[in-house]
Amino acid sequence: MTKSKFENQEKSNHEHLVDTKMTRKYLAFSPSETVERIEDVLDFKAREFETIGYVYAIDENGILVGVVSLKQILQSKHGTQLKEIMNTNVISLKQHEHQERAVYVALKHGLKVIPVVDSEHRLLGVVTQKSILSIFHHEFRKNLFRTSGIKHVKEIESMDTPVFSLVKVRFPSLFIGMLGGLIAASIVTNFEHVLSSYIALASFIPVIVYLTDAIGTQSQTLVVRLLAIEPGFPVSRYVLREIKIGIILGFVFAAMLFVAEIVGWQQIKLGIVVGMAVFFSMIFQAFFSTYLSIALSRMKKDPAIASGPIATIISDVTTIAMYFAIAMMILQIF
Amino acid sequence: MTKSKFENQEKSNHEHLVDTKMTRKYLAFSPSETVERIEDVLDFKAREFETIGYVYAIDENGILVGVVSLKQILQSKHGTQLKEIMNTNVISLKQHEHQERAVYVALKHGLKVIPVVDSEHRLLGVVTQKSILSIFHHEFRKNLFRTSGIKHVKEIESMDTPVFSLVKVRFPSLFIGMLGGLIAASIVTNFEHVLSSYIALASFIPVIVYLTDAIGTQSQTLVVRLLAIEPGFPVSRYVLREIKIGIILGFVFAAMLFVAEIVGWQQIKLGIVVGMAVFFSMIFQAFFSTYLSIALSRMKKDPAIASGPIATIISDVTTIAMYFAIAMMILQIF
Repeated sequence: MTKSKFENQEKSNHEHLVDTKMTRKYLAFSPSETVERIEDVLDFKAREFETIGYVYAIDENGILVGVVSLKQILQSKHGTQLKEIMNTNVISLKQHEHQERAVYVALKHGLKVIPVVDSEHRLLGVVTQKSILSIFHHEFRKNLFRTSGIKHVKEIESMDTPVFSLVKVRFPSLFIGMLGGLIAASIVTNFEHVLSSYIALASFIPVIVYLTDAIGTQSQTLVVRLLAIEPGFPVSRYVLREIKIGIILGFVFAAMLFVAEIVGWQQIKLGIVVGMAVFFSMIFQAFFSTYLSIALSRMKKDPAIASGPIATIISDVTTIAMYFAIAMMILQIF
Repeated sequence: MTKSKFENQEKSNHEHLVDTKMTRKYLAFSPSETVERIEDVLDFKAREFETIGYVYAIDENGILVGVVSLKQILQSKHGTQLKEIMNTNVISLKQHEHQERAVYVALKHGLKVIPVVDSEHRLLGVVTQKSILSIFHHEFRKNLFRTSGIKHVKEIESMDTPVFSLVKVRFPSLFIGMLGGLIAASIVTNFEHVLSSYIALASFIPVIVYLTDAIGTQSQTLVVRLLAIEPGFPVSRYVLREIKIGIILGFVFAAMLFVAEIVGWQQIKLGIVVGMAVFFSMIFQAFFSTYLSIALSRMKKDPAIASGPIATIISDVTTIAMYFAIAMMILQIF
């Protein structure tokens, strides 16, 4: 279990490692301990433990060798030894894994509490259900606000947050977006000669930009999910599949836009330009968003950054540049 | 606790109500029951219960009157009665609340298990930590995929999902987006006479569309969070605050774009058009996204729909129409 690539990558960013979220107030005994003695400990100091749902068995070196649920302890005879009833196939997390792993391990295996071990498999602590839920909430909130271009500081979600504080958390991503928009504007201006001889080109800017952004967002969301759930997935096979999807969707939308253009605008050259631009920019964007997310995760950065305003700018600017470059080419040829 | 507006609204959509996610395998006794008897039950059949972390006290009518943690039970003397140690201030959920409330109640109050009661406060069941985590995961996934324009069917997140299945879940939102883009294209075409006499107008389409979409996404995310966390917030005060934020951000970006236009393009009329368009469309979008999300939630629809492709189309089309209408006005006046 938990042979994830995250493990080796996560050295920085210590505050989000699983060992910062664990408690040491759990029940652990030698495998030869009896149920009677464990019940005695519970009778005298159950409330000193943060979690009593599971009892862990550790050997003389502190190595985690088994686990028994409290329900099973309560139902077992007093003389029973831990090792007679324990489950030796214990699912655990390594101390330097990213905290988010706790959520997916809990979901996958239906666990309430997850033990955390070091590289020698010594038990260091456990992550309780409360921590798992709050880790999930933290990751959910971070992801949500990052994708929406809102700085995820505390105290955003309240009726009492003053207008100015909300302006402050919303301004930066809009500002970066505006800079990107100005770059896009200057690209369009540079192609003004193409545009003035073929004014209808302007009409299709929004739809091309929209489709490219949209396929990029989809690709990014899917790969970020997989990075969280199955961090060890085969990258090149995945990227290849994404390129195939990009080719299919790019082709379908190019064909539909070509037909729509012929029906609605009756300008065959423009139809070819729009179709080609959509085809190539959708493929490029599906590939680029996927690859950027994987690269960010390899660099120990949050892959969700790839959905932020900077990624949108790169997408918009390359799309518009590609559109006008194709337009210039096609209009010169024919 | 749990005096939410959701309660009255949620009649349809039964599969997502909290009472479909609860278990009836919990420990409940009369308030006069002794610790000894409870421990006996645990010794004989602990494993028949899905959750034993809390023991609930119910009166002769089944009404929930108190709760005691298992830790406290284990540490109490055998003769102690439940009513001597129980906490009478029990946090619970009403059976017809949306399942998502369980997550926020658990987070807010640090609860592992939440009892569910009917309108007479009779105990119907409990939502366990496992259910809370899986509800949260369901809501997280739904929200993530919906915002990204991916149909949230099962089996999306796997290396083994075939290309064609992935094309199918990604196609619909792109298609709707394309239709919107074609509407936008025909609007631009209708204003071609304005555009041909003022070709530089085309350059600013991407930045205006981007800023309007972006502020709308921010507004929508913030109000959807508040609807989940504090469903009973004062709507008109909230909308008013959002309009104020829209006015400030709209003004700031209008001013910056005006200056950028003057510096980079030196066309004062265009600067005025771009500034005015950004100002009005950002305010409108901040208001519209907020209002639409609240209205959807009142109609028992998922407010996150407001971040989907249809909302983006409405935003893009109104923004572009507004931009060209303002352009026509200003260019005629001067």
